[in-house]
Amino acid sequence: MTATLPGTSQPVSPTDLPQVERRASLPAGFRVGGLAAGIKASGRPDLALAVTTDGPAAAAAVFTPNAFVAAPVRRSRANLAATSGDPRGGFGWARAIVSTSGCANAATGEAGDADQVAVGRLVADGLGIDESHVLHLSTGIIGTRLPLDRIAAGLEALVPRLASDDAGLDAAAGALRTTDSVAKVVSTTVELPGPEGAGDGSNVTITVSGIAKGVGMIHPNMATMLSLILTDAAVEPAVLWGLLRPAAVRTWNQLSVDGDTSTNDTVFALASGATHSAAVTAGSPAAAALGRAIEAVARDLARQQAADGEGATILITAAVRGARDDADARAVARAIVSSSLVKAAAHGKDPNWGRIAGAAGNGTVASQAVLEAAGLDAGAAAARAGQPAALDPDRLRITIAGHLVFDGARGGPLAFDRAAARAAMDAPELVIELDLNLGDGRGEAFGCDLTEAYVIENSEYTT
Amino acid sequence: MTATLPGTSQPVSPTDLPQVERRASLPAGFRVGGLAAGIKASGRPDLALAVTTDGPAAAAAVFTPNAFVAAPVRRSRANLAATSGDPRGGFGWARAIVSTSGCANAATGEAGDADQVAVGRLVADGLGIDESHVLHLSTGIIGTRLPLDRIAAGLEALVPRLASDDAGLDAAAGALRTTDSVAKVVSTTVELPGPEGAGDGSNVTITVSGIAKGVGMIHPNMATMLSLILTDAAVEPAVLWGLLRPAAVRTWNQLSVDGDTSTNDTVFALASGATHSAAVTAGSPAAAALGRAIEAVARDLARQQAADGEGATILITAAVRGARDDADARAVARAIVSSSLVKAAAHGKDPNWGRIAGAAGNGTVASQAVLEAAGLDAGAAAARAGQPAALDPDRLRITIAGHLVFDGARGGPLAFDRAAARAAMDAPELVIELDLNLGDGRGEAFGCDLTEAYVIENSEYTT
Repeated sequence: MTATLPGTSQPVSPTDLPQVERRASLPAGFRVGGLAAGIKASGRPDLALAVTTDGPAAAAAVFTPNAFVAAPVRRSRANLAATSGDPRGGFGWARAIVSTSGCANAATGEAGDADQVAVGRLVADGLGIDESHVLHLSTGIIGTRLPLDRIAAGLEALVPRLASDDAGLDAAAGALRTTDSVAKVVSTTVELPGPEGAGDGSNVTITVSGIAKGVGMIHPNMATMLSLILTDAAVEPAVLWGLLRPAAVRTWNQLSVDGDTSTNDTVFALASGATHSAAVTAGSPAAAALGRAIEAVARDLARQQAADGEGATILITAAVRGARDDADARAVARAIVSSSLVKAAAHGKDPNWGRIAGAAGNGTVASQAVLEAAGLDAGAAAARAGQPAALDPDRLRITIAGHLVFDGARGGPLAFDRAAARAAMDAPELVIELDLNLGDGRGEAFGCDLTEAYVIENSEYTT
Repeated sequence: MTATLPGTSQPVSPTDLPQVERRASLPAGFRVGGLAAGIKASGRPDLALAVTTDGPAAAAAVFTPNAFVAAPVRRSRANLAATSGDPRGGFGWARAIVSTSGCANAATGEAGDADQVAVGRLVADGLGIDESHVLHLSTGIIGTRLPLDRIAAGLEALVPRLASDDAGLDAAAGALRTTDSVAKVVSTTVELPGPEGAGDGSNVTITVSGIAKGVGMIHPNMATMLSLILTDAAVEPAVLWGLLRPAAVRTWNQLSVDGDTSTNDTVFALASGATHSAAVTAGSPAAAALGRAIEAVARDLARQQAADGEGATILITAAVRGARDDADARAVARAIVSSSLVKAAAHGKDPNWGRIAGAAGNGTVASQAVLEAAGLDAGAAAARAGQPAALDPDRLRITIAGHLVFDGARGGPLAFDRAAARAAMDAPELVIELDLNLGDGRGEAFGCDLTEAYVIENSEYTT
């Protein structure tokens, strides 16, 4: 299926990501599927399963940092730690990922943990694998228990239906949805260079595909961002983790719909290794190529999630150049897409550079804890955080939807064609570009406009 | 005048703040006033002046940490540095504070700085004082220049009208407003113990009063929080700064309307010393009493500002107990009042503990920069930030409008009378109480509900 979400702008960093297509393309080595198990009252698809066809796949994960972490996250982390021997629980081996939608299994205490183990056993028994090889995704209402009987019946129906084709991946993407307006799928194909010294003939073409659930929640309580990346590349778990995390830093960690981090946020990457036998090694050209493919998929999923935020009508991309370093650029970009004032201005097609400038200035503010430790002295706090002069208003340039509206070096506000700028903002994607003119740092962030519909959805819903 | 904003809940920390009254009570040693100078197109009061009657007052300030800092902030900081010799620009001596409303004089470059100096000279000439003794407040539209001719004419009219009475303070509070629905004033009177060794007869009664402009901005571009505290206590500038900053940490820095920090945010405290000659010394019982009085005034102004946020119908107070330390408690409280989901639920009178739990878990998340440095490993990031186990879901208790709805030690969600809780939420102030059961740390934060009116005000406004 083709999603109808916007997504034309190019990344500002890295600029060499491969092209992606918004269609399902199942990598080799997996069987996938989804169906309606009756977890959701609506009767829509709510149970998804991805299974390896040939032994464990390398698995890597990024989880929510929220202290109020849900049972599926705890269980996945424990299983990854068990299969890798690494206590951080970020990578390991897996044969299946199960996703339930409609119940987050969060804030359910020890009973919820036991439920999640029971789901893992159901999957393991149904597939004839070890429970420690099952990873978990859940999203939906907080504080309610998983309906184990329905999940058991659903799994019994789903396992024989799992398919090694693109339709199966579409079905899984559909079952990940809560109130997402469209299912979110994306794929890319890249050629990995062979091991050093080998001829060109050892190059191998691999597929990286992603499916995700974004944040369009009327009924579910919490923004639950779930993403699953599948690839047929061969790579060790720790190496895969080393590729997934920087990609997440530049993509999902730059995504803001309403500033809330959920109890269930999870990104999994599974590498089946079905296309080639020599595993990609850390630091190799092949690892770099695989990392770019993973990041391209991650970036597009994050953009689809931003575009489909609750009540959203516009995807906002903040593209920041000229920062002292990339981390600064990302911080400024995050502040812009997180600003309620900028989000409301985007909704009103208002080329309001004042709000953008204010948000950008805010992005370089040290954290409250650092500020407090420095006695509220911004200068001292910046020095403490190692951040002198991260933004200089006299060097800043702001471009809104292609219209240069502010240039610090030319005194600040510029005369511009306001009607033309407003017209350019009347589009599915608004790109806000900042050049800090301080260095080579680049970064971007993704958000959406703030609308009356967001407020209505989230205030009229009752637990 | 009596403000009609809510404000009944008691502070959770410190618990020994003096009572305040929401009426103007001008401390001795000041002449104050305000009028309409024509800076605002609406013709409403927009120029305020506070002047000492007898030489310079001790002055202390807390400014916005926004990198995009406005000209009035830069000028005030420079003048404080000049009169104190301390390069941080946080304290010094002042004879006058001038406030213009309707133009923020932000993002106006060198011309804006020159304008602000010109305003200082106009005030200094009109009063026969030194320009370095003038402090500046400005709020309003970003990117426009100050109308110096109107300010000059306004000052000429205002200086002879300055009054040493409560009506003058009311006039100044009125001229601080932009689109605040009410003027914000508060006063308290406390007895300061005399110097150690002196008898009870040396005790002195002093007044601390505050006026403020909150964030109810349709026309102005940026949230501009301005607050002015006047007292007739005698205290050295550095000591006053030492009292003002911790008060700001627990009050204004716990205030969130929409998460945006402005270019102009400023808090000034002026101490005339008119009531007694022996200055309050650092660390003395008198300093502690003065600090509590300043904090009581700061807290009430912050609560008035939260209650009068854009589109707000409810003041939300998050009161956190049992944190590992006060900073943790404040971080959790801030996260709750800053959550769009909690704010929308408050608007819908929805006792949605899931959103509160999620926001609380978010409050203890390390900053993005720390998370990135730790490779997105929340555990490693927490350890790096010195924050292990700042929130344990199994120990957390959540009370909404007096209804205990979640108790981690009893399995989490509790059965409660939902209709009664909804009815209790239908009030001008919503108090959300959390007990983390981890230590003695306490803190609170102040916010408001998120309403359709907020979105409409901020999206329909056009620069």
